[in-house]
Amino acid sequence: MSHKVKPRTLAGTLELLPNDQILFNEMVDKIRKAYESFGFLPLDTPILELSEILLAKAGGETEKQIYRFEKGDNDLSLRFDLTVPFAKYVSIYQNELVFPFKRYQIGKVYRGERPQKCRFREFYQCDVDVIADKLDIINDAEMVNIIYTAFQSLNLAKFTICINNRKILNGLFEALQIADKKVEIMRIIDKIDKIGEKAMREELEKLEVTQNNIDKICEFILISGSTSEKIEKLKSMQIANETFVSGLTELEKIAKYVTEFGIPEENFKIDLKIARGLDYYTGTVYETFFDEYRNLGSVCSGGRYDNLTEYYTDRKFQGVGISIGLTRLFAQLKEMNLLQASNHSIAKVLVVPMDENCSNFALKTAKQLRDSGINTDLYSNFQKDMKAKLKYADKQNIPYVCIIGENEIQENVVTLKNMQQKTQEKQTVEELIKILK
Amino acid sequence: MSHKVKPRTLAGTLELLPNDQILFNEMVDKIRKAYESFGFLPLDTPILELSEILLAKAGGETEKQIYRFEKGDNDLSLRFDLTVPFAKYVSIYQNELVFPFKRYQIGKVYRGERPQKCRFREFYQCDVDVIADKLDIINDAEMVNIIYTAFQSLNLAKFTICINNRKILNGLFEALQIADKKVEIMRIIDKIDKIGEKAMREELEKLEVTQNNIDKICEFILISGSTSEKIEKLKSMQIANETFVSGLTELEKIAKYVTEFGIPEENFKIDLKIARGLDYYTGTVYETFFDEYRNLGSVCSGGRYDNLTEYYTDRKFQGVGISIGLTRLFAQLKEMNLLQASNHSIAKVLVVPMDENCSNFALKTAKQLRDSGINTDLYSNFQKDMKAKLKYADKQNIPYVCIIGENEIQENVVTLKNMQQKTQEKQTVEELIKILK
Repeated sequence: MSHKVKPRTLAGTLELLPNDQILFNEMVDKIRKAYESFGFLPLDTPILELSEILLAKAGGETEKQIYRFEKGDNDLSLRFDLTVPFAKYVSIYQNELVFPFKRYQIGKVYRGERPQKCRFREFYQCDVDVIADKLDIINDAEMVNIIYTAFQSLNLAKFTICINNRKILNGLFEALQIADKKVEIMRIIDKIDKIGEKAMREELEKLEVTQNNIDKICEFILISGSTSEKIEKLKSMQIANETFVSGLTELEKIAKYVTEFGIPEENFKIDLKIARGLDYYTGTVYETFFDEYRNLGSVCSGGRYDNLTEYYTDRKFQGVGISIGLTRLFAQLKEMNLLQASNHSIAKVLVVPMDENCSNFALKTAKQLRDSGINTDLYSNFQKDMKAKLKYADKQNIPYVCIIGENEIQENVVTLKNMQQKTQEKQTVEELIKILK
Repeated sequence: MSHKVKPRTLAGTLELLPNDQILFNEMVDKIRKAYESFGFLPLDTPILELSEILLAKAGGETEKQIYRFEKGDNDLSLRFDLTVPFAKYVSIYQNELVFPFKRYQIGKVYRGERPQKCRFREFYQCDVDVIADKLDIINDAEMVNIIYTAFQSLNLAKFTICINNRKILNGLFEALQIADKKVEIMRIIDKIDKIGEKAMREELEKLEVTQNNIDKICEFILISGSTSEKIEKLKSMQIANETFVSGLTELEKIAKYVTEFGIPEENFKIDLKIARGLDYYTGTVYETFFDEYRNLGSVCSGGRYDNLTEYYTDRKFQGVGISIGLTRLFAQLKEMNLLQASNHSIAKVLVVPMDENCSNFALKTAKQLRDSGINTDLYSNFQKDMKAKLKYADKQNIPYVCIIGENEIQENVVTLKNMQQKTQEKQTVEELIKILK
């Protein structure tokens, strides 16, 4: 065979070397553990769905970016998020599920973007959502708690969970009688951190918002102080609009619950600028930032929606959920050298028979270790010299090497090498198990 | 909004209700744990690859079944197995990887089959492979050990790992001077369990194999006895063919190692009928059967290959690996009612505040439980009555419910309900944590 295909991986997909993969999987495991600590149930839906299902709510970027194709009689697409399949799932199984239905899902999603640095065509999302016919606002606070728990356990950087409430924004715009322009205004507000107050004011002027209203908007979104001070200031604005008051009441309750959950002040903030692009959010919205790396953008976002399943069923469900875009986050952290090099290994010990004659004792030792719950790699290339064998352990961060030669077999011991301390000592297998446990 | 899309899931994909999903995930976790106990490293490659890469070795069923489509300038496909992406990965990163490279991968693969019962278009494979420039036969024995460990921990049914060696078959055909027909002969041999010896003989006659050679083939593939008896009988056939002798030596070594690994006789068998369809296997081949459900076919298969990366690189790698088709296995077990209904839950306890006024104490209790490592669900719908709340716990197999009302708050205790024993008792939070731990 002489014709070769140049081996390569599609741009915009993530493929890692083993040590990075271990690190990535550890992050997945921590997120999963955090989500499960709140009793959320696992879900795994197909990546491949009927296009009609995924595009029930069609239009915009989604239709342009989706991977869609025909096979046989089927018009198929790759899912572009985990939210639409969740809505489908709840609609199908509504009579079998117990509500409130709390689920988490960690899986790959697909978007046919032009690949750029830290923009992916295939990437992991880690979602939690809770859904029910009627959902108390305490669930919105629980989401803050979940984000807090997940990022505490990931231990990546100092972070702040920022929340806002769409009703407050909508109510304000109604009160100022500029509700007809609210989508455009929200889009402009959302950019204030990037473009600054001045440029934001100019854009609002172009939209023909009156100077008076622009002042009110700025006064509003720039309200400062502690969480309780912000709530007091919002109350004192005395905006006589039902939607505004309802949103403010929700925000106040969430703030109370968040305190009761024991989440530190420094990790939680009301940020009235946050609008979130997605138009299905109807109440609370979340964004999460690393305090020292705000340029990364939000690392965990979400919100409350009133009728996610509307394209599939008449039954109305309220829901609230958040999502971590893990592939992007991992790539960004790696790019910025913020990932601590993993010193974790899969194997705790490498068993090395000196030659083929030592295999019997080595195999038995490996079995005893594994039976004791110790992950044990067995070095199997008898031709290689000891240097190569130790290098193998070293490159994989395996902390111990257990050498078995003729002498060891005669004495019924093993030579245990501590790779970090560069020490070695003879041990019985029983002692070995105790040390490695 | 009035137009609804009927919510449904693509035929040939698996979507489970939460209790089954928990069971499925437990199986994945057990397999992962078994693979990691041998020190195998995790790998995650993209599902979406360039068609040129996946179809480097084109032809046959693969090309017909692959999901292939264009997007922008790219000709893309969904991977149809984990072996081809593994070969690509090793070819790309050969200078960064440490050899022997031992990796496991658990992920979804895609085949555009007509969906039938227990045939899937999207399904999980759970693969382990070890690859190196030169790979000692001890690795072939380790694969038996891995299969044994995985299926012991899955604890589904009595199983037998059957192995054979392609070289023995090839050598025999060379010695009988029928090597030109070996592909067809192997295909016929492979069917003996389905069609019986008589029909197999007839098919061989049609292929114009001489009666004498048919007798030899039958004598050979029907050799019986213990593993060591089979090896003795094969030796006593005195087939003067290098390939045959080499294969027999390998088989003998594997049998020796398998004993040294402590794998019970009843779980391991030499089965000379096994040929395996895939033509890249060059030595050991594996199939695994449930003793009482042989009709399920092999639940874990694999083999040794000499040059998996030949389409991508000139460097030659030897490898050996096995694969569990988990989605199919799960569906079959479910179909046959062989899956024990999971009594596992994600949450260990459900915290139930009697009404909104009890939320403060409930939230603090939930936090203390979670901080102690106890998965804790919080019931948040204050409107529902106690019956609905208990039903929620019951349906999800949550073993304990922790009720918090005015009385409990005054006494600074909680009422702990044991859902299985239908008993309840007041406990302090400290006692509660001790009981749930």
